Amino acid sequence: MTHYCGCMVGPSVPRAADDYTRDQAVRRRDFVREQVGADLTHVGSYSLDPATLPGNVENFIGVAQVPIGLAGPLVIDGEEAKGDFYVPLATTEGTLVASYNRGMGLLARSGGVRTTVISESMQRAPVFLFDDAREAREFGDWLRDHFAAIKETAEATTSIGRLVEIQQFPVGPNLYTRFCYTTGDAAGQNMTGKATYAACEWIVAAHGSAHYILSGSMDTDKKHSHVNQLLGRGRRVVAEATIPAAVMREAVGVDPATMFRARQIQTVGGYLAGTAYLGAHAANGLTALFIATGQDVANVAEAHTGITYSQLLDNGDFYWSITLPALIVGTYGGGTGLATQRECLELLGCYGTGGARRFAEICAATVLAGDVSLAGAVLAGDWVSSHDRLGRNRP
Amino acid sequence: MTHYCGCMVGPSVPRAADDYTRDQAVRRRDFVREQVGADLTHVGSYSLDPATLPGNVENFIGVAQVPIGLAGPLVIDGEEAKGDFYVPLATTEGTLVASYNRGMGLLARSGGVRTTVISESMQRAPVFLFDDAREAREFGDWLRDHFAAIKETAEATTSIGRLVEIQQFPVGPNLYTRFCYTTGDAAGQNMTGKATYAACEWIVAAHGSAHYILSGSMDTDKKHSHVNQLLGRGRRVVAEATIPAAVMREAVGVDPATMFRARQIQTVGGYLAGTAYLGAHAANGLTALFIATGQDVANVAEAHTGITYSQLLDNGDFYWSITLPALIVGTYGGGTGLATQRECLELLGCYGTGGARRFAEICAATVLAGDVSLAGAVLAGDWVSSHDRLGRNRP
Amino acid sequence: MTHYCGCMVGPSVPRAADDYTRDQAVRRRDFVREQVGADLTHVGSYSLDPATLPGNVENFIGVAQVPIGLAGPLVIDGEEAKGDFYVPLATTEGTLVASYNRGMGLLARSGGVRTTVISESMQRAPVFLFDDAREAREFGDWLRDHFAAIKETAEATTSIGRLVEIQQFPVGPNLYTRFCYTTGDAAGQNMTGKATYAACEWIVAAHGSAHYILSGSMDTDKKHSHVNQLLGRGRRVVAEATIPAAVMREAVGVDPATMFRARQIQTVGGYLAGTAYLGAHAANGLTALFIATGQDVANVAEAHTGITYSQLLDNGDFYWSITLPALIVGTYGGGTGLATQRECLELLGCYGTGGARRFAEICAATVLAGDVSLAGAVLAGDWVSSHDRLGRNRP
Amino acid sequence: MTHYCGCMVGPSVPRAADDYTRDQAVRRRDFVREQVGADLTHVGSYSLDPATLPGNVENFIGVAQVPIGLAGPLVIDGEEAKGDFYVPLATTEGTLVASYNRGMGLLARSGGVRTTVISESMQRAPVFLFDDAREAREFGDWLRDHFAAIKETAEATTSIGRLVEIQQFPVGPNLYTRFCYTTGDAAGQNMTGKATYAACEWIVAAHGSAHYILSGSMDTDKKHSHVNQLLGRGRRVVAEATIPAAVMREAVGVDPATMFRARQIQTVGGYLAGTAYLGAHAANGLTALFIATGQDVANVAEAHTGITYSQLLDNGDFYWSITLPALIVGTYGGGTGLATQRECLELLGCYGTGGARRFAEICAATVLAGDVSLAGAVLAGDWVSSHDRLGRNRP
Repeated sequence: MTHYCGCMVGPSVPRAADDYTRDQAVRRRDFVREQVGADLTHVGSYSLDPATLPGNVENFIGVAQVPIGLAGPLVIDGEEAKGDFYVPLATTEGTLVASYNRGMGLLARSGGVRTTVISESMQRAPVFLFDDAREAREFGDWLRDHFAAIKETAEATTSIGRLVEIQQFPVGPNLYTRFCYTTGDAAGQNMTGKATYAACEWIVAAHGSAHYILSGSMDTDKKHSHVNQLLGRGRRVVAEATIPAAVMREAVGVDPATMFRARQIQTVGGYLAGTAYLGAHAANGLTALFIATGQDVANVAEAHTGITYSQLLDNGDFYWSITLPALIVGTYGGGTGLATQRECLELLGCYGTGGARRFAEICAATVLAGDVSLAGAVLAGDWVSSHDRLGRNRP
Repeated sequence: MTHYCGCMVGPSVPRAADDYTRDQAVRRRDFVREQVGADLTHVGSYSLDPATLPGNVENFIGVAQVPIGLAGPLVIDGEEAKGDFYVPLATTEGTLVASYNRGMGLLARSGGVRTTVISESMQRAPVFLFDDAREAREFGDWLRDHFAAIKETAEATTSIGRLVEIQQFPVGPNLYTRFCYTTGDAAGQNMTGKATYAACEWIVAAHGSAHYILSGSMDTDKKHSHVNQLLGRGRRVVAEATIPAAVMREAVGVDPATMFRARQIQTVGGYLAGTAYLGAHAANGLTALFIATGQDVANVAEAHTGITYSQLLDNGDFYWSITLPALIVGTYGGGTGLATQRECLELLGCYGTGGARRFAEICAATVLAGDVSLAGAVLAGDWVSSHDRLGRNRP
Repeated sequence: MTHYCGCMVGPSVPRAADDYTRDQAVRRRDFVREQVGADLTHVGSYSLDPATLPGNVENFIGVAQVPIGLAGPLVIDGEEAKGDFYVPLATTEGTLVASYNRGMGLLARSGGVRTTVISESMQRAPVFLFDDAREAREFGDWLRDHFAAIKETAEATTSIGRLVEIQQFPVGPNLYTRFCYTTGDAAGQNMTGKATYAACEWIVAAHGSAHYILSGSMDTDKKHSHVNQLLGRGRRVVAEATIPAAVMREAVGVDPATMFRARQIQTVGGYLAGTAYLGAHAANGLTALFIATGQDVANVAEAHTGITYSQLLDNGDFYWSITLPALIVGTYGGGTGLATQRECLELLGCYGTGGARRFAEICAATVLAGDVSLAGAVLAGDWVSSHDRLGRNRP
Repeated sequence: MTHYCGCMVGPSVPRAADDYTRDQAVRRRDFVREQVGADLTHVGSYSLDPATLPGNVENFIGVAQVPIGLAGPLVIDGEEAKGDFYVPLATTEGTLVASYNRGMGLLARSGGVRTTVISESMQRAPVFLFDDAREAREFGDWLRDHFAAIKETAEATTSIGRLVEIQQFPVGPNLYTRFCYTTGDAAGQNMTGKATYAACEWIVAAHGSAHYILSGSMDTDKKHSHVNQLLGRGRRVVAEATIPAAVMREAVGVDPATMFRARQIQTVGGYLAGTAYLGAHAANGLTALFIATGQDVANVAEAHTGITYSQLLDNGDFYWSITLPALIVGTYGGGTGLATQRECLELLGCYGTGGARRFAEICAATVLAGDVSLAGAVLAGDWVSSHDRLGRNRP
């Protein structure tokens, strides 16, 4: 194989039949050294057992060592998560852990965070193709009429996944759909992919004239989307707290009225910007938690979307809620069973069956802690310091 | 401090004056064991030197070991990235490395990927507050008139950052802005935050009646936004390739005409969904690269946005481009100097000064490889197998 | 009442007990002459009977004479609209009628337009307010459990409206909803407002602790919205046609392959712009039809949204579809019974009961005609004239 | 020409060399009667002179008589609009005039509306096509380097239009642009189309290897778009007022604190819905004004977008602003010179040269009046009546 430049393209990465061993990792690191001259000593320093990696990575050469900082206690009054949690955050961004830690302290002094999982749903989104809109519409009716059989077919592929609904979005001669499932403690992308594929093959056979693509792009896998905000993906979770005025002043140095006014102005800015998240920085905490606990970190693209709704109460306290409509997490499968990842999930009491909902609550509470802290920092540093700014009766 | 439940809130995470040592990490892991009963043996297994961590993490307890797989060679015909690259991808999602690797093979056989950095810009986005819209408009004029002085003030805080432009978005009595900088080989969020703060303080003093919040939310830091898509954040990068029909058929088992039609249908689906990315899964490759190389991984929330533009050429070959308007990366500062992260950047020849642009090109080329591969997999598995689907002359 | 300038604010517009007469209109025009010195002779020239205007306008002074041009025949193969239609377009924009007329000719020569009403739904969108997210979630369950009673209450206020579904969108402590109705041949905003108000009052009484605002802004009345695109408002209608290559070349001077490539490029441009409509100019035809036929013209803000999906067929012909997800029209009530408006509806065979679906089909077919024509004009005038542009094998 | 049904397609609408006469309108109405059996007596009743219609309509058959109601006085403290205005609103939606009238009364008692035109810009948006992204980027540089010559070429086609800026949005191998003009008192779509076409032809000739489509869809003509919200189209106008608490209570029966809380909740609802307008119903007032004054009414699709920013002041008064970023209006050309339309513009003191800015201010002030009134009605009717709802200290 020759290059655009006329020279030869380099060799492929070496593999072996028994590919998940320390030796194979060494061989590949040696290969890198030969090809590129790069040293991977630290990458080669790890305690996990390569034999645990099939299903998680291919062409394994070692690990990224991502530093973990510990924040907490995060006090949660959830339905599954109840009590104090120490939260492992894997990050290389300085002050992130300190800032979340500060926010957790503030929330603890406010009586903790109330968390609620509103709903859950994971999707695959096949599009069905027809000759014209009328055929597509008739197929839509057919789909509704055959839901029971489709559900049975889909669920035959999985012991956990349950097909709950098929949403329809007709455009021209095509019917875009979202097949919505519950997936237990797994994030569920693979499970629902397999189930939907089986369902689609059944549909095509049973219907006789339907064609399809397994994804018409309305699952928006690993991509933010407005449909996720509206209709949810993964879990829709709310975290909320009421922060006494005195606590806010002491902990972040900002008056609730100032914070509230800033929230209004930033909400308008976020709307104008067309932003995916109306709060400060959900992505920071979620990413750090996801890396630490073996989540599919690319889901942050979807999971970071959300809405802040806050209220200045009559007594001067500050009610603060964040709603995450597309929080995609799992405590079973994926990377959750790997060495450090499992330890971090166990640290949160969330590893394995029954943990996903609790973990979702912890994620949302963590996001709230980070937003309160950063919002305070933005204001305390530069706005409030200018003493008179809010003292005038002005818009 | 008492709980919502009436019991006492748990103790804070222990710290020490000399906090970045192995011993301190041990103390904190012991603390976790006492508080929660969790074992963190693997988390405590690492080769990095804790003394390197100030500025990257607080309350350090150990590391997440994220498996790295090697993909490549990725053949790039860029302006900074030229030749074969072996790409370290840190992930726990099975098949990800294999899929990107397959895409890289396909692109190598197609003559490689052409990459182009179109522009670069990092923002901070203060909002300035006035009594009415006319004052805000006049301040906007004032801002344009005093750009030279503002630029000088901002740039005095940094040896690298350059203030290029101040974009204005007036709403009611407030003027939302985006201060746009070039930031060399750093991602630049901190640099531009510091510079903009200095600029704002100068503005407030010089102007006399302006008030501000350092972020009016139009920087959309760690959040996808439409303003990023339009006006860019970080680097705006294009990766493009022309895939011979025969190569596409052999490598992913799909005919270019089939692929093209699927792209059209998925583009419409993506538009309808209100998705942030018109291709398959930029977030997957970017996340894996970001973890491996010490990027601020939360930037994936912004960086994953983009547009696919493809074309079925008259000769049957397939032109494929992806445009990433908000690719935020750095090869200097942040997590780039840590043990494994630096090794991975060196493996790509991108560590340190002068590497950011090259690294951005590698990121974009990687995204293209992954999109080609996954798009093929989606089609080969379910669509094309149904032989007659494209044989009819139909919409 | 005094002015900001210190002078007196002018008098109110005169009214009378019997206010809908020619004399009262004269009095008000005299008032205008006295106050402002403006002559309204033409405004005062009209044939409609003011006694027909209660429920349509207040403080009547006369009419806007909006010129109507006639386009057609528009050949439709719909479910309700079948055959040739001559379409009255009220506009002051030169070339609009001519351009739509040209498009209708092209479509007639292509065998006409196939139209399909996919679904219909008109909404009111109360938001229900609670103390926390858990209460809101429980209320959501309560709402589902009491749907039959709510439906009965809502439908008791109307002989036509039917409550089909209540969609739920929880955010923080609040539950945003969309109450979805069918509304027969009326557009239905008033009908559904009244029904939803009755339903909400019943809900508040029956539930005991719910509070609400009648609109939480998710009905997006008179405003474009993404939720409309996804879930529909008014009628979701598709118009589609297959244009023979020869017809396209002769009628608009453009080759289908050129047209198709332009569509792709413009689709990407529309996505990047964040546009509400992926075609050329639905708003033009809809506005002209709406003015002529007594629709609530402000609904154009919602109705103009839509998606173009086109396909270059193997035989070189061009399949073109437009999908309008939020086409809000009525043929009963509102302005449909006024003098000229009724005549124009009758010209289309759509006045009164049973006409709304037919009229929706005519609207969609008109939009398609205008889009085909304008798209051709944009290309024929400037693109194709440059002979060699598509002759090269390039992206 | 034969139908899809096999029968003959109906005849074309008759035209004549001298087509703009009452006789020709009669002939066409007779044609309609023959073809469809429809009577158009009222349509044929008009006072305008058909000889004035070339450039406004083709195939003229008569007029739509749209009732006009008079609202006011609207008290404006603008830069061009100063004093009391009586506003002609052409509508068939009952209560619209009464509601705007009520809002104007409330605002008059509040000292009037302050209006500010922030900026103006009309666009055409050609896309330039290249072989790869690097060529497109280089062309972007070329475009900046040749701006003076392009500006000269564009402006040679118009005595009024001025090319101010060319915005660039590169995607893949294509460069999307927005050519931004000021257009005096005309809305300017035709003027800028002609100028941009001339500019593009010059560019193609001078550059040598650029190809283009005159619209790459980023002008979003007659379509709402996010780019309009961010960067503006037509005029960006703010209307603002401070409403004393007592006035709000008396005039719409709502307490400012209640109104403010509702605004917050509705802002979140609007964000979630992905709405184009964060207020109540800009489209209603704009449409009625546009029909009355001969604006291109389809521009409502763009013009209705906007942002409400409000503030509950320390003294309990309510600051309310609306920002319309894409208000496209003209007082010269288009339909502004027709019989009733000109009278209505003269009634507002806006006809002809020098009137556009004043008219834009009146439009924005009218929108504010309507929003205040409707927001009050929504609350007074259903929310506040439930006495205790706001009496509790709750989120």
